[in-house]
Amino acid sequence: MDFDLIQSLMKQNETGKIVLLVMDGLGGLPMEEGGKTELEAAHTPNMDALAKKSMLGLHQGIRTGITPGSGPAHLSLFGYDPLQYKVGRGVLSALGIDFDLKRTDVAARGNFCTVDEQGRITDRRAGRIPTEVSERLCDLLNEKVNIPEVEVFLRVVKEYRFLLVVRGEGLSANIEETDPQVIGEKPLPAKAVDKASEKAAEIVQEFVRQAEVILADESPANMLLLRGFAQWPDWPMFPEVFDLKSIAIAMYPMYRGVAKLVGMDSPPASHSYEEEIDLLEKEWGNYDFFFVHIKKTDSYGEDGNFENKVGEIEKVDALLPRILALDPSVLIITGDHSTPCAMKYHSWHPVPVLFYSKLSRPDGIGSFGERACLKGGLGSRFPAYELMPLALAHANRLEKFGA
Amino acid sequence: MDFDLIQSLMKQNETGKIVLLVMDGLGGLPMEEGGKTELEAAHTPNMDALAKKSMLGLHQGIRTGITPGSGPAHLSLFGYDPLQYKVGRGVLSALGIDFDLKRTDVAARGNFCTVDEQGRITDRRAGRIPTEVSERLCDLLNEKVNIPEVEVFLRVVKEYRFLLVVRGEGLSANIEETDPQVIGEKPLPAKAVDKASEKAAEIVQEFVRQAEVILADESPANMLLLRGFAQWPDWPMFPEVFDLKSIAIAMYPMYRGVAKLVGMDSPPASHSYEEEIDLLEKEWGNYDFFFVHIKKTDSYGEDGNFENKVGEIEKVDALLPRILALDPSVLIITGDHSTPCAMKYHSWHPVPVLFYSKLSRPDGIGSFGERACLKGGLGSRFPAYELMPLALAHANRLEKFGA
Repeated sequence: MDFDLIQSLMKQNETGKIVLLVMDGLGGLPMEEGGKTELEAAHTPNMDALAKKSMLGLHQGIRTGITPGSGPAHLSLFGYDPLQYKVGRGVLSALGIDFDLKRTDVAARGNFCTVDEQGRITDRRAGRIPTEVSERLCDLLNEKVNIPEVEVFLRVVKEYRFLLVVRGEGLSANIEETDPQVIGEKPLPAKAVDKASEKAAEIVQEFVRQAEVILADESPANMLLLRGFAQWPDWPMFPEVFDLKSIAIAMYPMYRGVAKLVGMDSPPASHSYEEEIDLLEKEWGNYDFFFVHIKKTDSYGEDGNFENKVGEIEKVDALLPRILALDPSVLIITGDHSTPCAMKYHSWHPVPVLFYSKLSRPDGIGSFGERACLKGGLGSRFPAYELMPLALAHANRLEKFGA
Repeated sequence: MDFDLIQSLMKQNETGKIVLLVMDGLGGLPMEEGGKTELEAAHTPNMDALAKKSMLGLHQGIRTGITPGSGPAHLSLFGYDPLQYKVGRGVLSALGIDFDLKRTDVAARGNFCTVDEQGRITDRRAGRIPTEVSERLCDLLNEKVNIPEVEVFLRVVKEYRFLLVVRGEGLSANIEETDPQVIGEKPLPAKAVDKASEKAAEIVQEFVRQAEVILADESPANMLLLRGFAQWPDWPMFPEVFDLKSIAIAMYPMYRGVAKLVGMDSPPASHSYEEEIDLLEKEWGNYDFFFVHIKKTDSYGEDGNFENKVGEIEKVDALLPRILALDPSVLIITGDHSTPCAMKYHSWHPVPVLFYSKLSRPDGIGSFGERACLKGGLGSRFPAYELMPLALAHANRLEKFGA
C-alpha cells in the first residue's frame, strides 16, 4: 500500500471510529466432503444480521498460496504489506513473550541443542527438552555470562526455544545465523554481514564461547544455536500514517507486541473476551482505532477441535451487540489467516471478512461464512492491506484525489 | 511472481504430485445470443462432479484485454509472468517445428518475399506461396549458402514462413530486423544493437547477400525478410524454482518446446489422448509435476467448428477417471487462452479453471463452465502465473511466511 498517497489525502479533525475485530485463524475448511466450515457451522445470528448491511469478501495476508505467520498476517491487516515490512524472528520472539525490547537492542531466536565431543551437532533441538529445563538453563546463563559494557538477557520461549537480547551502544543486527541447520556439523560463527554489525557480532561470538563452557556438563542441552538476528524496525508508525489514536486489546503478548511494533498503545493483557469488551467500552472516548484480538479460534484450529472453534466464534457473536452499541463508524470482523481444524495448522486459504459501516454498500448476503463471502463485493482474494484505506474512507477520513 | 519468495519457502522432500491439464484454447463464447459456450455445452459429468469438490475461477494469461500467443500463455501457466520472461519469435519458431536449438544458436523467423528490379519490396509474403515451395527454397539455401566457421540452417515453418538458425561460436542475437514492414522499401540491413552481437549480425548480413543471389531467378519468392532474432533464454528453470521433477506430455512440438524452454523433460510426441494418459500413468512414479497438453480444442476453435470443439472436451472428460485414479495432490484443468469458435481465433477472454485438491476449499458450484467459474473463489480474472504457488501450497510444499 502507498502510505504517501493515503497521507496526502488525510482529512483533519475527523472523529469516525474504527474497530478491527480479529478472530485468530478464523478461516476454515469442511471436515468432510460436503460439510460446512467452522464459521459456516457456527450459529451467529448477530453477525448474520450485520452481514445483510455489510460488504463481504475474503482477504489474503501475504500472497496467493502463501501461508501467513501471525506477525506478518497482522501487519497486513494494519495496512503494511508484509513483503515490504519484514520483521526478524528475534524481534517476533521478544514480542511473543512480552519482553520489553528497546529500539537499540539486538534480538535473536535461539535453540538449545546437543553437540558431541568434537562439538558437532547431534540434535538441533536437544531432544525437545521441556520448557522448565530451558528455563533453568536460561537462568544459569543470565547469572554466569559476563561481557563488559553490554547487558545480555536470556528468556525461555517454549521447550528448547529461547530469546537472546544484547543491550548496549552501537549495535546492529546484520549478523549471520550460527545454526548450520544440518546434523553432524559444528555451529557456525556469528559473522557480521556489514561494518555496522561488527561490534554486535563480536559480542554474540563471545556470548557463544562463554555459553559453551557454562553448558558443557549439561545433558542433552550442552550447546545453543542462534537465528534471526533483528532489531526493532524503523517504520512509519500506524497512528501517524493514518492519523488514528490507536489501541490494541488482546489477551496474548504476541498480538499486543505486533501492535506496539507499529506504534499502537498496548495496555496489559485482558483475561477474557468480556474483559476485552469492557476495555473497549472504557477507552471508547480516548481512541480512534481499536484492534481487538480473539485468540482461541486459532488455538482450537491447531488442536483440530472443530466443535470448540465453532463455540469460540459463537461466543464472539454473542458479544457483538456490545460493540455495535458503541456505534462505530467502521467495524471489520475477520481473521488474520486460516487455521482449518481439518489441517491443525495455519493455511493459505483466504480469510472471511465482514466490513460494516453505515456508508458501506451492502452486498445483500444474509450470512457470514466462507462461501457467502465468495459472493461479496470485496472480492475473493484481495490483499488484507487494502482494508485500512477502505476503513479510512468509510470513516470519512479521506479527501478526494484530484479535482 | 516472486521466485525468490517461493524458493525461500520450499519444503524439502515433499512428495505431493501436481497435474496441469491444459485444453488449448478452452475458453469460448456462445455462437448466438442466449446460447452456451463450448465448455458449457459439453456434457462433462466427470468434470462437473469434480467441480463440486474444487475451487473455480477464470485466469488471464497476460493482462486484461491482451490476447495471448501460445508461448507466453503456457509460460504464465508455468508461473512465469510473460511480460517479464519474453521469448523471441526466432526461438518460438524453432520450438514450434521441433528444431533442436542449442543454447548458443541465434534463431530468426523469416518470410519469403517479392522484390522488384530495384530491390524494393512488392509483396512481404511472396503471394503466400504454399509450404512445398518454401520447402524447396529452404533446401536450395541449405545447399548453396556457404559462410566460413558457422553452420546455417533453414527450415520451413508454414507457407511463406521459415526458420533461420545460425550456429557458431561467440554469437549474440541483439540484431535489428530486416523487414521494414512497408511495401515499396528495400529490406533493411541486419544491424547489431550491441557490441556482442556484431559477429552474428555480419554473418546474417552475409547470409542475406548470398540468399539474394541464390533466389534471384525465383518467382514470386525472390528475396527474404528476417525478424525476431533470439537466443535460448537464460531463465530460472522450473524444476529448480519449484523443486519439482517435471515432464511435458504433448502431441505437438510447440508445447513440448515451451516446456523444454523452462527445463521440463519433454519426451517424443504422443499420438492420441489415450497415449498421453498412458504416458502419464507410466511416468507417475518418476515425476512430481505433469503438464498434459490437449491440442484439438484450439484447432476446432480456429476452424469455428463448435460441435467438434465440444466433442474434444467430452473426450477429455471421459479420460478424467484415469487421471483421478492416480490420486494427484493437485489437479488443475484449464486452457492456455480462449479460442471461441464464434471468433475462429485466440482471444483475450478469461479462461475457465478447475482447481482440485483434497485441501481446496470447495466453492459449492456444481458444474464446470465459464459462467459457473465466475462464482468461484479464484476470481474472474486472476493472473495465470498465480496457479503455481497455489498448486505448491495445496501439495503441501510450502512453509509458512514469518512466525
